[in-house]
Amino acid sequence: VGEFEHIAKIRRLAEKTTLPGESVRLGIGDDCCLVAAGSDQEFALSTDTIVEGVHFRLDYFSYYQVGVKAAAAAISDLAAMAAEPVGSLAAVSISESAAESALEDLASGLIDTCEKYGCPLLGGDLTRSPSPLVATVTVIGKLPAGTAIRRSTARPGDEIWVTGSPGDAAAVLAVLENARGGCGPRPQVTEEQAARLHEPVPRLAEARLLRNYGLATAMIDISDGVAADLNHILESSGCGALLFGDRLPVSEFSRSVAGNLALRPEHFLLYGGEDFELLFTSGQQAVQKHLAGLRKKSHTSFTLIGRITDKIGELAIIRENGRLEQVEKTGFDHFKKPETTNRKESS
Amino acid sequence: VGEFEHIAKIRRLAEKTTLPGESVRLGIGDDCCLVAAGSDQEFALSTDTIVEGVHFRLDYFSYYQVGVKAAAAAISDLAAMAAEPVGSLAAVSISESAAESALEDLASGLIDTCEKYGCPLLGGDLTRSPSPLVATVTVIGKLPAGTAIRRSTARPGDEIWVTGSPGDAAAVLAVLENARGGCGPRPQVTEEQAARLHEPVPRLAEARLLRNYGLATAMIDISDGVAADLNHILESSGCGALLFGDRLPVSEFSRSVAGNLALRPEHFLLYGGEDFELLFTSGQQAVQKHLAGLRKKSHTSFTLIGRITDKIGELAIIRENGRLEQVEKTGFDHFKKPETTNRKESS
Repeated sequence: VGEFEHIAKIRRLAEKTTLPGESVRLGIGDDCCLVAAGSDQEFALSTDTIVEGVHFRLDYFSYYQVGVKAAAAAISDLAAMAAEPVGSLAAVSISESAAESALEDLASGLIDTCEKYGCPLLGGDLTRSPSPLVATVTVIGKLPAGTAIRRSTARPGDEIWVTGSPGDAAAVLAVLENARGGCGPRPQVTEEQAARLHEPVPRLAEARLLRNYGLATAMIDISDGVAADLNHILESSGCGALLFGDRLPVSEFSRSVAGNLALRPEHFLLYGGEDFELLFTSGQQAVQKHLAGLRKKSHTSFTLIGRITDKIGELAIIRENGRLEQVEKTGFDHFKKPETTNRKESS
Repeated sequence: VGEFEHIAKIRRLAEKTTLPGESVRLGIGDDCCLVAAGSDQEFALSTDTIVEGVHFRLDYFSYYQVGVKAAAAAISDLAAMAAEPVGSLAAVSISESAAESALEDLASGLIDTCEKYGCPLLGGDLTRSPSPLVATVTVIGKLPAGTAIRRSTARPGDEIWVTGSPGDAAAVLAVLENARGGCGPRPQVTEEQAARLHEPVPRLAEARLLRNYGLATAMIDISDGVAADLNHILESSGCGALLFGDRLPVSEFSRSVAGNLALRPEHFLLYGGEDFELLFTSGQQAVQKHLAGLRKKSHTSFTLIGRITDKIGELAIIRENGRLEQVEKTGFDHFKKPETTNRKESS
């Protein structure tokens, strides 16, 4: 049983036994839950864990970067609902044998990142752990009641858009993992490229623009790859999707790493997450009208990559030659065996 | 450097870099942080981690009980501020080699406990971990603005009260740890006693009564023992305390286990936590007037155990013969070496 099946089972358990009270507007199953805060606001909350050896390795992540990544990954869930950060809580289990400075570096990475995005650290829990390092960050955001952008509200005919060039973080990871093994091709990684993995930027500003312009019908942040995360929208919304193979915003870097590994150019975009770009759906031509403004105000690219269809559960890609291919819907799955996953770090 | 010093350092870092925004009413340093929710309410939030081999062992905790304990420990932080539960988020890192049923049992324990206390599970994150099992639960509670009972508001002259008989969970743990080693005395543990460790009861009802009667001037839940947790109140409030040695509500069971281990009768009450009783301060004679009602409505005992003094930082105990002794202020400290801690499981 894979992670997603486990989560589905737990969700069913939780839904069976819990009825939302007056305060609960949305429970398990989206990037955040929603809780009423007064008459006209809602709080959005999400919790996100990163584990040494699963989400990062300490031989190419500094403790500071672990703190940055843990905070950014959690804050990205607020962006995915278009919520404004309010604050965060962190729980860290760290080895007793870790250097004196390790915990301070990690805390500095956490606190700096929380501060940078207006999501100050308001509490936490610290535990000695035999191993490995585990950091869980819970974020609290707020937004006007009823304005959260959910996964479940995409409609057939909607356009599918992404910010930036998803897959870059996974491409960096592939390079670092190959270098680590001491074999295979070793393309250069610039500092800017490495930052895509080590210090991802939650797309809060982009989400705010989308909310203000009323553009997104559904949204998610890309943590497991376009295929897996788009599929979450499809399952929640009861739709299918067709991706335009020639329009995917694959960076030159990501394409080159994929080529060196004999993978398709779009491999990391489809199956590698962790750069936390946004994927959203929008009514036809709606984004186009605001595209110049979106790009100018956010300094981020927005790319139309496909269309929502009424073929429930079908995720396909149309190639330049017109051929339709089914896309495997999985991304990185912590509970699957290494040979069936797409990411090097799972082995 | 011990855990408490680490936390103090992180707190200073966080305080230096973060200014509470309009929404943040209370940051790091109490059982919960407080965030404004509309004009007349506040949300209280806390995060709590339990780690295999540190907070529990799987040879005398079932997965179900781990779930119960993780949820109860977190919900207890809401009781400590006298907040009403709204919902919870759980992050679990579990070994890939754990049995198929383990995760479901753990989730059931979590979900049942959250449901039991009106704190439904609203979201979560699930990760494969090489080892050990780590469960982090974040709880959200609410209360009328300004009514949270903090640690920092005890005043010299206030009475010090506790609910129930703190230390029972630590006594059970001592019995189980001794049985585990295959040596030492093995007193019988009844199911009811064992439940004090395995399925602690967050004192929500008692906290609600204290809030409604306006009785508590400061409050904390006892997770590390009366000595360490009372000391948190003393440090936050800038006071000292004198405990009445002949009035401590040590259960017969806890006294007997301590005796068998050649420890003082009050050892587990002072230095063992995890049964999550409440410790609170109150104006003179204030509780006495409501004592019958408190006991009848909550079915829990309330015991006067001491007095807040103006001797800043001094924690003393007065013995039956009138002798004053200083009390060591430490409880269980995850970052200290085994020989300096008071709990068996730390070794």
